[in-house]
Amino acid sequence: MEVLIDGHCHRVLARDLDRAAFETACTEADLPPPPGVSYLDSRVGLAVRRWCAPALGLPAHASADDYLARRAELGWRAATEALLRAAGLAELLVDTGLDDPALLGDAGLAAASGARVREVVRLERVAETLPADTGAAGFATTFAAALAGRIRTAAAVKSVAAYRHGLAVPAERPTPRAVQRAAEAWLRAGRGRITDPVLLGHVLWAGVGTGLPLQLHTGFGDRSLALRRADPALAQPFLAALGPRAAPVVLLHCYPYHRNAGWLAQVYPHVYVDVGLTVTHAGDAVLPEFFELAPFGKLLFSTDAYLLPELYLVGAARFRHALRRLLDTWRADDSVSVADAERIATLVGAGNARRLYGRSVGACGPTRRR
Amino acid sequence: MEVLIDGHCHRVLARDLDRAAFETACTEADLPPPPGVSYLDSRVGLAVRRWCAPALGLPAHASADDYLARRAELGWRAATEALLRAAGLAELLVDTGLDDPALLGDAGLAAASGARVREVVRLERVAETLPADTGAAGFATTFAAALAGRIRTAAAVKSVAAYRHGLAVPAERPTPRAVQRAAEAWLRAGRGRITDPVLLGHVLWAGVGTGLPLQLHTGFGDRSLALRRADPALAQPFLAALGPRAAPVVLLHCYPYHRNAGWLAQVYPHVYVDVGLTVTHAGDAVLPEFFELAPFGKLLFSTDAYLLPELYLVGAARFRHALRRLLDTWRADDSVSVADAERIATLVGAGNARRLYGRSVGACGPTRRR
Amino acid sequence: MEVLIDGHCHRVLARDLDRAAFETACTEADLPPPPGVSYLDSRVGLAVRRWCAPALGLPAHASADDYLARRAELGWRAATEALLRAAGLAELLVDTGLDDPALLGDAGLAAASGARVREVVRLERVAETLPADTGAAGFATTFAAALAGRIRTAAAVKSVAAYRHGLAVPAERPTPRAVQRAAEAWLRAGRGRITDPVLLGHVLWAGVGTGLPLQLHTGFGDRSLALRRADPALAQPFLAALGPRAAPVVLLHCYPYHRNAGWLAQVYPHVYVDVGLTVTHAGDAVLPEFFELAPFGKLLFSTDAYLLPELYLVGAARFRHALRRLLDTWRADDSVSVADAERIATLVGAGNARRLYGRSVGACGPTRRR
Repeated sequence: MEVLIDGHCHRVLARDLDRAAFETACTEADLPPPPGVSYLDSRVGLAVRRWCAPALGLPAHASADDYLARRAELGWRAATEALLRAAGLAELLVDTGLDDPALLGDAGLAAASGARVREVVRLERVAETLPADTGAAGFATTFAAALAGRIRTAAAVKSVAAYRHGLAVPAERPTPRAVQRAAEAWLRAGRGRITDPVLLGHVLWAGVGTGLPLQLHTGFGDRSLALRRADPALAQPFLAALGPRAAPVVLLHCYPYHRNAGWLAQVYPHVYVDVGLTVTHAGDAVLPEFFELAPFGKLLFSTDAYLLPELYLVGAARFRHALRRLLDTWRADDSVSVADAERIATLVGAGNARRLYGRSVGACGPTRRR
Repeated sequence: MEVLIDGHCHRVLARDLDRAAFETACTEADLPPPPGVSYLDSRVGLAVRRWCAPALGLPAHASADDYLARRAELGWRAATEALLRAAGLAELLVDTGLDDPALLGDAGLAAASGARVREVVRLERVAETLPADTGAAGFATTFAAALAGRIRTAAAVKSVAAYRHGLAVPAERPTPRAVQRAAEAWLRAGRGRITDPVLLGHVLWAGVGTGLPLQLHTGFGDRSLALRRADPALAQPFLAALGPRAAPVVLLHCYPYHRNAGWLAQVYPHVYVDVGLTVTHAGDAVLPEFFELAPFGKLLFSTDAYLLPELYLVGAARFRHALRRLLDTWRADDSVSVADAERIATLVGAGNARRLYGRSVGACGPTRRR
Repeated sequence: MEVLIDGHCHRVLARDLDRAAFETACTEADLPPPPGVSYLDSRVGLAVRRWCAPALGLPAHASADDYLARRAELGWRAATEALLRAAGLAELLVDTGLDDPALLGDAGLAAASGARVREVVRLERVAETLPADTGAAGFATTFAAALAGRIRTAAAVKSVAAYRHGLAVPAERPTPRAVQRAAEAWLRAGRGRITDPVLLGHVLWAGVGTGLPLQLHTGFGDRSLALRRADPALAQPFLAALGPRAAPVVLLHCYPYHRNAGWLAQVYPHVYVDVGLTVTHAGDAVLPEFFELAPFGKLLFSTDAYLLPELYLVGAARFRHALRRLLDTWRADDSVSVADAERIATLVGAGNARRLYGRSVGACGPTRRR
């Protein structure tokens, strides 16, 4: 089993949950399904029953009822440890922007998984949690100071501009005056979710200015996102304006626009692509499409797992399975040598992430044991 | 052979036709091909020769000439019965919006196919055939009354807004005043095809208001449609405005935007996806992509067959073949149990349609014999 | 090995080049990769090592270092001849719009490849190289005369409007007055690259007016192109305005919008699709998607090779391999007869190009020897 570095994931729930909540956590839906439909009747549901049931001591393809009964019997803590260990992840880069007391903290996650845990700082959340007395004139400097404080031990920064305004952010860095005006409007409106493209642009440029890789949500997600505005090709002017010496930008997920993302990764030296949530959902059907245009040194793995430890295991297992299958196909028609196939698997599973995200001094959790 | 319910199709021609007309009816083109090109040199053409030739007593892959000679020898009526019976369809939901005296009526279709025939009411056609004395002030109420009369025995309503304005219809229900103004303009212009987004929006909201499933043409079709305006993701604001308790909306065909449609079906409880015309044309190459994001309980089968009984058989055969192949692939790498694979095939082929479209009292034709 | 006609390619470099230049010529990138990334770690890089190494006397999958050492040892001229001969191309249609003294001329290319060489005239370049004394009032007539002079022995004309304004060019032919105004602005601005949609529209209509096939760059390319503006479906209004009796329009490359292109080729009699650069990069993963909607008589092969003779061989080898694999898949599930599979391979590899581009009297190079 290849060592994997999970370049983008979220925290897991530190409590038991009922069937309805479990089902919903397996999809990007947030509402109950209509009568007669189960969210577990899906590629993710099948994958949970195939990969996670054995990790909890059941036969593969155990029924959803049997699986959930077994999970309840073990309790969330034991189930979480069994599932995370089975995922075989050496390192987790956790987007801490989705926070909640019900979620397991970094130390707990490191203990349960046996993996090193590092932080990915969500830029919009830093801005949205600035001190209550922040004024428009001081917004930029206060944000800069807060961000500097947060990134000391972080592996990357991240933006969810795709969820807010979409990826058609202004190409050029917004002027201080424009930022102040936009901050005024945001403060006046009550400091809610930032959706103004000028403020989002400011936050993105500040993120790139940290020198850390910038992870950019692109493609599908939950329904609060307008799918057509999440096409990474909409960010082409912004990516072009950054210039080739900019900090790396990692396009996450990308589906159904992953082929657009592959092209961006081919022609812009600072652009990378992470298969993320896409492989968890679509598996071996889609992974090959990531390998069409992107250089292999630009492809990254992550699970985007959230709430359920099952999603770490499903993401890792589907990725390993899909990558193995892709490389076997290439081998079968003599497109690649055995040695190169192994090298490519190692690059995409961990090597590229190591080169890109480096090693942090402040990482939480046990040292890697592999 | 699994029982299939054809959730969206059209009437067949009740007369013989020459080679040029046959060729054109096999494509979405309406103009003759350039010299040297045959529309039968296509996936659909190959499928006709493979699946339909045996149904007419010829070897598979008989030449187009032999096939058309045999068809002429049998005459349209015998050929139609042989092809429709071979399709093995239990129920046909017929969009009656494309009407013509040259087409076989519901009773004839039921007799020829041995299937139960039910109606899908095309909303725009109801509006466009209102009594000649309908005025702008009375448009909404006259339309409502006409629609109420038409849907009594219908299985679903349907909109071709994609062909008229595109799917970027207004999210919110148009106001009575806006509808009246738009109706005035439409009447002044001579009551032609409705292309005004306000009137189309009104008609869509009225359709959803019937409580019947609303079928929405999305994706490719003939050249009177602007492809880029047929992306179902353009309808996201409208779908979101309907709310989760709305009548179901079925996105038909979807190609090449079927991955967008799958996402909509995952995150909106009331949204479903029908493979329709896409599988007839692209078969096993595309069917797997419908299974990436959509829950299996949200996927439906239809042929979108029109004019040629061959297209019923090709649609059904390609769907069965592609689904069998997809599930065999999943089985081969242990992604699904045998029992689940069978259950999924039954759901998508007929079970979901039965749940969604229910059973009509006024259906035309023999009761199901399977 | 099937005879292939390469319907769209460029000139090769007539000198040796270092590793960095070689790597960059294997991608659409024009900037060096970031540290740790090699552009040869890509599908194209693997294909060079697989297909080109044996043509230069090395084992398949030789390392990039070994390959480049062997290439340097042979020298560019011997390597070019070996690679081009191995590509087995009967005819090359060369876009002469990318010209440079460092590139091999037509006679040299014909001698090295053993193929007949014919010209594809790039419309924008004809306009941009009009005599220095051309005024706005005379722009249209001077351009018409220059174009008439250039096309006498040409096989096709070509437009790179996708790189300039994008494919959303005006549907209707621009009026003489609009063209003169646009020419004035262009002259005033110093006669640089033409990006004005009116001038591009004029040039396109003039191209179609020659009666020669018009090749249209669509889809991906280098980063000077905005990907979203290169969707061939953006050109639907222009294609529709041309009418079915227009000269043929060939949509080149198309990826990631190749499914849109296939639809255009199905519903517009004068529209064709060329797999071009897409198959060189994405090979057997994407070729099947070109065969979904386009009639087989509308599909064409080209390599879009430029600078490196390797790209001719990779394009031809990946195309042959992918097409063989696709047809074998169809055979394996009995979708096509053996005879039809062979006929389709011949059509797409050469027959359609012969019909479309005809035979030129002024072709340069040896007569075909097959």
